[in-house]
Amino acid sequence: MAKMNAFYAQSGGVTAVINASACGVIEAARKHTNKIGKLYAGRNGIIGALTEELIDTSREPARAIAALRYTPAGAFGSARYKLKSLEQNRAQYERLIEVFKAHNIGYFFYNGGGDSADTCLKVSQLSEQMGYPVACVHVPKTMDNDLPATDCSPGFGSVAKYLATSIREAGFDVASMSRTSTKVFVLEVMGRHAGWTTAACGLAAETEGEAPHVLLFPEIPLDEARFLAKVEHSVNRYDHCVIGVSEGLQNSDGKFVAETGLRDAFGHAQLGGVAPVIANLIREKLKYKYHWAVADYLQRAARHLASRTDVAQAYAVGKAAVDLALEGRNAVMPTIVRKSGKPYRWTIGVAELRDVANVEKKMPRDYITEDGFHITAKCRAYLSPLIQGEDYPPFRNGLPTYVRLKNIAVPKKLGVAFSI
Amino acid sequence: MAKMNAFYAQSGGVTAVINASACGVIEAARKHTNKIGKLYAGRNGIIGALTEELIDTSREPARAIAALRYTPAGAFGSARYKLKSLEQNRAQYERLIEVFKAHNIGYFFYNGGGDSADTCLKVSQLSEQMGYPVACVHVPKTMDNDLPATDCSPGFGSVAKYLATSIREAGFDVASMSRTSTKVFVLEVMGRHAGWTTAACGLAAETEGEAPHVLLFPEIPLDEARFLAKVEHSVNRYDHCVIGVSEGLQNSDGKFVAETGLRDAFGHAQLGGVAPVIANLIREKLKYKYHWAVADYLQRAARHLASRTDVAQAYAVGKAAVDLALEGRNAVMPTIVRKSGKPYRWTIGVAELRDVANVEKKMPRDYITEDGFHITAKCRAYLSPLIQGEDYPPFRNGLPTYVRLKNIAVPKKLGVAFSI
Repeated sequence: MAKMNAFYAQSGGVTAVINASACGVIEAARKHTNKIGKLYAGRNGIIGALTEELIDTSREPARAIAALRYTPAGAFGSARYKLKSLEQNRAQYERLIEVFKAHNIGYFFYNGGGDSADTCLKVSQLSEQMGYPVACVHVPKTMDNDLPATDCSPGFGSVAKYLATSIREAGFDVASMSRTSTKVFVLEVMGRHAGWTTAACGLAAETEGEAPHVLLFPEIPLDEARFLAKVEHSVNRYDHCVIGVSEGLQNSDGKFVAETGLRDAFGHAQLGGVAPVIANLIREKLKYKYHWAVADYLQRAARHLASRTDVAQAYAVGKAAVDLALEGRNAVMPTIVRKSGKPYRWTIGVAELRDVANVEKKMPRDYITEDGFHITAKCRAYLSPLIQGEDYPPFRNGLPTYVRLKNIAVPKKLGVAFSI
Repeated sequence: MAKMNAFYAQSGGVTAVINASACGVIEAARKHTNKIGKLYAGRNGIIGALTEELIDTSREPARAIAALRYTPAGAFGSARYKLKSLEQNRAQYERLIEVFKAHNIGYFFYNGGGDSADTCLKVSQLSEQMGYPVACVHVPKTMDNDLPATDCSPGFGSVAKYLATSIREAGFDVASMSRTSTKVFVLEVMGRHAGWTTAACGLAAETEGEAPHVLLFPEIPLDEARFLAKVEHSVNRYDHCVIGVSEGLQNSDGKFVAETGLRDAFGHAQLGGVAPVIANLIREKLKYKYHWAVADYLQRAARHLASRTDVAQAYAVGKAAVDLALEGRNAVMPTIVRKSGKPYRWTIGVAELRDVANVEKKMPRDYITEDGFHITAKCRAYLSPLIQGEDYPPFRNGLPTYVRLKNIAVPKKLGVAFSI
């Protein structure tokens, strides 16, 4: 294959380490200047490709790129923008290929979750059909940990570490005040469909009586009576109760406990605010004094408390994506392979995108205790390696110092604008 | 003065560094075994003194006491329990003195905010009147930073560092997603009466356009129209807007905004949570997509991100309290004295409790910009030194490892129980 340019884009909700993957892609690409020309990034993800708003990453000094490794969120802008199906909007895909062609792009690295894996696969197929084959490699990313084929998803380990740490710290707080003040503390965590993040809270409870005492998973419909009995039991025994609850918690009739009626661009219900609902329930039924917190974006942006394992894996899948493309692979995704749990050893594998796209990795039922309110030893054994190690960013003036790239635009070559 | 025992108690809402003060008190007391016998701690604060539930800190190994320096919350239990006035409940104070007498306690170290300074002063006065003089030294602590006579209050610097870091990180997140997703992010912070914690968020905005873009202080009544214009301006200019809001924000009629009524799915009013109210206001009036977070206890328990300066000061006031008592001082409080701002240098001073008790340090108006929505350079110059330096706790299994003391009870000597 002749020397061609590459295109990298970030997709969906950002994480504390998606830029570490960008760093891996860019640093790897810069090592292969014989095969890869320029690496362009999409301004605001795939939208940048559709609107021909490309960023020339070669204009960034090596130091700035290296700083991506410890900078949270999406340095080039990400997007919640799902391409429609080929049947519904073939023009979108054709436009993508046109832009790629105009800028001599032969490699497409798409960094995201399940939706972007699907897009990546379709671009690979359509570019082939259109006679302009592009090597498409998906770089896994999601704090939800719901990508299949990989042992875990980069982005998740850092959220897990943040949540387990935060609920432990809040647990110490509540335990020391419960005699006269707050007895029940509720922490709401993100994670719409799968309980991976909720489960991560459970890691903090390493010994009898330690917070969290109750977890409310999206997989287990809320049984009010059993839940309240569990809370009461914890307060009777430890004088307090710390609860981790998923934003995706559902009632027994399948409705979200915190439904607001809003929907996002993907048509998903916009959630938020299950913690106050649970806290109010406890106040009404048990009369305990309570406090609640909603971590929201703090949890997925908390680069200051990233998991060293997660950062290393995010970087590694970025680098591996370039290596795979250069090996001539197409429509694939580098994966994390667990070689051993204790001691934890991992390596990079590879999955076909047809096995990844639109498949959601559910949390196994045997990761949740039988009563539905905590994690099992098996779950702990799976999760624990993912939060190992710290990887603090540099601080200046008492605050973490994160990089802002120049993000210099590549001159447009197509005369036609494209509205999204 | 003959060798006597000492009593230490924690009061009010705990912080990330109140145990660092306990560490300072205990380690200092252990260096003066010629003058101080045993150091007892109150189980659940002053309640432990009233009910004669004393903890023998001498039963804890030096390593456990040293670990208090990096353990958040109150290791002996704290209490929200304000002693009534001498006129209203003299019996409470007399009981305290009786317990002190029974256990040969000649030193009282009370670690808390304004209320506990007042109690400390009264115990000093009454013990004198009752012919059993106790040297009473108040150890300053409050995340609210509203204690007078001291440049700052231990506990505040760490909250400030946590909030500024968190809002910066969330700012990076929102900035990278705003093209297609969330445009407005609202972070609610604690601090009901004074805007110190809200102001701390402002430290994150070091350059033009950086989050937070708008701050809502408890000192400045919410002017909806001007606020919405400010948010709109930020979104027009930067495509997003990050807001820090105090839980104590009030409407122009003096009502807490948090009490103005968010309703859950069942139409029940939800208590607490000014962030969702502000977010809903923005959605209704400006139609922007939003997210909100409520940090709640996470902010004051976040020892993983403590300010090194704060930890050092918390330890120093604990140690100084013992030194003052041994110098024969009574009814005093060690203070933080700022010797220079840039470079920051501080030392320990001393204040009379009659100048501290029941006085609240307000935030100066000139720390808030004229439009009421951000902090001034003067405020930044005051706050910035307080968040300098990191002081990470040790981690084990990927999580911070905090100490739990044995808290062995001292045998009771009084036959009479005392109900609180």
